[in-house]
Amino acid sequence: MNFKEKLFKAALKNRSWLCVGLDPDISKLPSNIVKTPSGIEEFLKVVIDTTKDLVCAYKPNSAFYEQFGIDGIALLKSIISFVPADIPVILDAKRGDIGNTSKMYAAAAFDYLGADAITVNPYMGFDSIWPFLDYKDKGVIILCLTSNLSSSDFQKRQVIDIDNRQIPLYQVIARTALAWNKNDNVGLVVGATKPEELGELRKLVGDGIPILIPGVGAQGGDLEMSLKNGSNKDGQLAIINVSRSVLYASKESDYAAKSRENALALVSIMRSLLF
Amino acid sequence: MNFKEKLFKAALKNRSWLCVGLDPDISKLPSNIVKTPSGIEEFLKVVIDTTKDLVCAYKPNSAFYEQFGIDGIALLKSIISFVPADIPVILDAKRGDIGNTSKMYAAAAFDYLGADAITVNPYMGFDSIWPFLDYKDKGVIILCLTSNLSSSDFQKRQVIDIDNRQIPLYQVIARTALAWNKNDNVGLVVGATKPEELGELRKLVGDGIPILIPGVGAQGGDLEMSLKNGSNKDGQLAIINVSRSVLYASKESDYAAKSRENALALVSIMRSLLF
Repeated sequence: MNFKEKLFKAALKNRSWLCVGLDPDISKLPSNIVKTPSGIEEFLKVVIDTTKDLVCAYKPNSAFYEQFGIDGIALLKSIISFVPADIPVILDAKRGDIGNTSKMYAAAAFDYLGADAITVNPYMGFDSIWPFLDYKDKGVIILCLTSNLSSSDFQKRQVIDIDNRQIPLYQVIARTALAWNKNDNVGLVVGATKPEELGELRKLVGDGIPILIPGVGAQGGDLEMSLKNGSNKDGQLAIINVSRSVLYASKESDYAAKSRENALALVSIMRSLLF
Repeated sequence: MNFKEKLFKAALKNRSWLCVGLDPDISKLPSNIVKTPSGIEEFLKVVIDTTKDLVCAYKPNSAFYEQFGIDGIALLKSIISFVPADIPVILDAKRGDIGNTSKMYAAAAFDYLGADAITVNPYMGFDSIWPFLDYKDKGVIILCLTSNLSSSDFQKRQVIDIDNRQIPLYQVIARTALAWNKNDNVGLVVGATKPEELGELRKLVGDGIPILIPGVGAQGGDLEMSLKNGSNKDGQLAIINVSRSVLYASKESDYAAKSRENALALVSIMRSLLF
């Protein structure tokens, strides 16, 4: 089963396009959690247990684990393997390098850590992304238009297109990503903070490409707008990622219940609109 | 002492702008080296010992360590701390994410691993790079025009500039990187396989910015041309990275002597031209 099939299956089973970000941040953990990798492990496993019937995917961000060095990599591997086998794990790592190096990154993400998909940075072009795409069963989710303010620095620059028209760089990336989709395993990252562009991009790439949409919640993106503009014609494939507002729903020992409550509030909206 | 001062000091002491890439590849190791992380550790330490009077920096690429998981991170940390204290270590990791996440990557590279500089990917813009730049004593080397063939996919696209002129995206990146250089800790990556553009970029950024130049050797870049076009007016700050042709100079037990021989051949050319 490839990434897209696994994603569809989880989304339909749980009637949800919610992806929960698993980003351990010492300063935000509930007060009763021990601030060590093993304390964090326990915390993340509780959050997974309490939300696993509400999500279509989980998304650990590699940086939050790498900060702890060796212990963090052990934690990341353990958390990925703890996620139920029928829920895909997207490793948010934003990798990309020359071909023989990207091959090593792909091996780390897919063979060693066991992720089902990875986010990648397209700046270096096709040969930097190909080693990931070559894993046919794995998803390769390409940064297109990100949720941060500075996405306008380069991603929104007007570029001269082949026919001499001017289009923004992120549209060039989206169109190119489509051309790279020979194995039906390409996705895009488009921030929820850019609802208008999200709608344009869904039209541009058609109905078959998963769009990972971070930025709902702490970053200010709107859920309904993201679903409306990011979904395909059947109300599918807009993966709404929420990290902080589910993971850090409470600073107290009721965090499991509060995480579930916040996740369920988002999923209820999804169910009323899409399922 | 900040990264640039440390780099200058090492370059002047060793009369060299050679940076040796430390990228462990099981398939290329000498035949007498045990193909395990501890075998690799021994191999890399021998190469460092035999070249440490010939380099201005070392550059381990994170991917080659990440492929080994926990053991690889332990190896990376050990290798970085083995490099003599007066030689800077550039962690080639090509990181970049939204602000609070880049902060974690910076902590991993600088606080945990102890690198002196890191390579970063600029696609997400200023707020994704700022957390690295904020470490004033550390170098932040921004991908500009990379050595791979597919660098033309996006980096060479013509972009509409403020005054309505068309310039390639990599020049926009270079000019923006200059504007980000408040802490005098910005550098650029420009591939040796793009000698003409390298010359343009040195002119564009002036004499104060280190340019990390990969692609001499296995990738086909020319050493003399890279030095000529990449150096500043005083013949400085063109960091010539060579990985495979020094590290894997021999498949036999004479690898230490051969690595030194290949490094020395490059350094001799540098010395005759620059020192």
